[in-house]
Amino acid sequence: MESSRGPGGTLPQAAWRLNNDFDSIYDDELLLEVERLNIDSASFVQMEQAGDVAAQILETVRTRGKQHNRVTGSGGMLLGRVARVGTALAELGSPLAALQKNDRVASLVSLTLTPLRIDRIVSVDPKRHQVVCAGQAVLFASGMAAKMPADLPESVALAAFDVAGAAPQVTRMTQKGARVLILGCGGKSGLLCSAAARRAGAGRIVGVERDEASAAAARRLGACGEIVLADAADAVAVATAAIKAAGGEFDLAVSCVNVPDAEMAAILATRDGGTIYYFSMSTSFTKAALGAEGVSRDVTMIVGNGYAPSHAEKTLELLRAESVLQEIFIERFKTE
Amino acid sequence: MESSRGPGGTLPQAAWRLNNDFDSIYDDELLLEVERLNIDSASFVQMEQAGDVAAQILETVRTRGKQHNRVTGSGGMLLGRVARVGTALAELGSPLAALQKNDRVASLVSLTLTPLRIDRIVSVDPKRHQVVCAGQAVLFASGMAAKMPADLPESVALAAFDVAGAAPQVTRMTQKGARVLILGCGGKSGLLCSAAARRAGAGRIVGVERDEASAAAARRLGACGEIVLADAADAVAVATAAIKAAGGEFDLAVSCVNVPDAEMAAILATRDGGTIYYFSMSTSFTKAALGAEGVSRDVTMIVGNGYAPSHAEKTLELLRAESVLQEIFIERFKTE
Repeated sequence: MESSRGPGGTLPQAAWRLNNDFDSIYDDELLLEVERLNIDSASFVQMEQAGDVAAQILETVRTRGKQHNRVTGSGGMLLGRVARVGTALAELGSPLAALQKNDRVASLVSLTLTPLRIDRIVSVDPKRHQVVCAGQAVLFASGMAAKMPADLPESVALAAFDVAGAAPQVTRMTQKGARVLILGCGGKSGLLCSAAARRAGAGRIVGVERDEASAAAARRLGACGEIVLADAADAVAVATAAIKAAGGEFDLAVSCVNVPDAEMAAILATRDGGTIYYFSMSTSFTKAALGAEGVSRDVTMIVGNGYAPSHAEKTLELLRAESVLQEIFIERFKTE
Repeated sequence: MESSRGPGGTLPQAAWRLNNDFDSIYDDELLLEVERLNIDSASFVQMEQAGDVAAQILETVRTRGKQHNRVTGSGGMLLGRVARVGTALAELGSPLAALQKNDRVASLVSLTLTPLRIDRIVSVDPKRHQVVCAGQAVLFASGMAAKMPADLPESVALAAFDVAGAAPQVTRMTQKGARVLILGCGGKSGLLCSAAARRAGAGRIVGVERDEASAAAARRLGACGEIVLADAADAVAVATAAIKAAGGEFDLAVSCVNVPDAEMAAILATRDGGTIYYFSMSTSFTKAALGAEGVSRDVTMIVGNGYAPSHAEKTLELLRAESVLQEIFIERFKTE
């Protein structure tokens, strides 16, 4: 079922521009009053390097009708309050039909396919990659949204929802006793993935982190048996150090870095027959494909899927079960 | 073991420029007299659209010391004659040590990491994406090369080696009775993958092809039970037609197209829990990752790895076992 707002034969993500005129709202749409954007990490870092983040977001949303970074191709998600639940959503079987007016929700589909209008930006939070703003957005019948939990600060839940696909995927992919490598182990998704790998019974977890403060957070979490302080772009050095720390090549490598050029470190560190999970949006498809070919490594390389069944609930459960992880998230992401 | 030519701490593929001065040759290197390049399909198509292919190749190799397309990030492979086998290759355990001077070989590592000098381009073959030229190249100890088979024309074997990773991967991934979708089923890798899926026992194979001549080749091969003539970029239309033709969503989708924007067709056509194998170098990592998230599809998306154990031999075996496939390859790629 396509929304009445759908851009013809294309899908909303592939479309250059979405219709963000919400004067007309269709019955198969959920209208949200937007309060906060949580920008994808790769996108935020790129915009920071390019200049004024707020100006770039306003320009992107003005010209494209969505926050779809044209350099990184990535988006993020948003927090808002339900303004109107389309009357056709229930008969379409949409999960959004369960929501009610004034519910506070986070969107669980990417901003790259969410029609958005921003009226003003109140503040940009470079530490959390979040943007407080006023505006409106629409979710389609096929979209998903999670009600904000009562037991966690909203900015913390929003930060976790943004990478909700990561930890549940790692849980599924980690075999008992496995050697697991986490590149970018001190970042948001890196911490979640490290904790997920530990709970799934990994035998040895080694983390790589280039930022000292982030490495300190990973140490405090304690999921990684060893943490290598290095830039994942130094492929040979990082792989050598990580393999030494683990006592052998890795069964599973997870890339959670938010800068380019970490593909090769993961490939060199993973055993033949092993799996690499590229969750980072900075991953280059060709660098991964040709890199593995170039060193003749028989690894299964997986594109991180932002979705997994019940990913939002599972990620909140992980935060509730891991008290240190929850503390770190609250310190890092709580705004009020 | 790094070659003496290695670009410091970086790997040859990540380096912007490689040293292609072959006046000094190191003992851990294999020197080749280059006769023919087989350009990656995505790269060739991009250069064709941009203008004079020969001029662009000469410029890229002159400035980068390798045929590494800066737009697509991809390369290809080459055919040449062994000029010198480095004396240290044997003690390094390199597979290249088994070669002898004057052996005709195809490189099985990407041109994106192969130091190359081109003295002149004799001709460009737009049909086969091959370039007849004179020059030299070096393979490192970690590289791989296949001796040209005696029973197949060289240009045919070279064409097959260029995508040697594809069919063996599909063989491993196809479960008996599975529904398999091949996007770009009439191209070089598409034909190989279709044949591999049939031999692996797929229950129903549906191909998608936008080019009528290529579709005719796929029909002649007969591996696909049905062929949908459409542009894979039309995601909704292609997925709908393919699912109808297969009688249900696909267990495995393989993308072999050589143009952008086929990510979403594969995602929409694949069942929850299914697998997508992106062999196409035109694949965008973010379009795949955010596309699956956007429609909440729980699919495993795999980055096509150009390498698989014994991939060159297995691909030649497939050509030998499938007489119609071999005929099509000879008609399409034989030059002499």
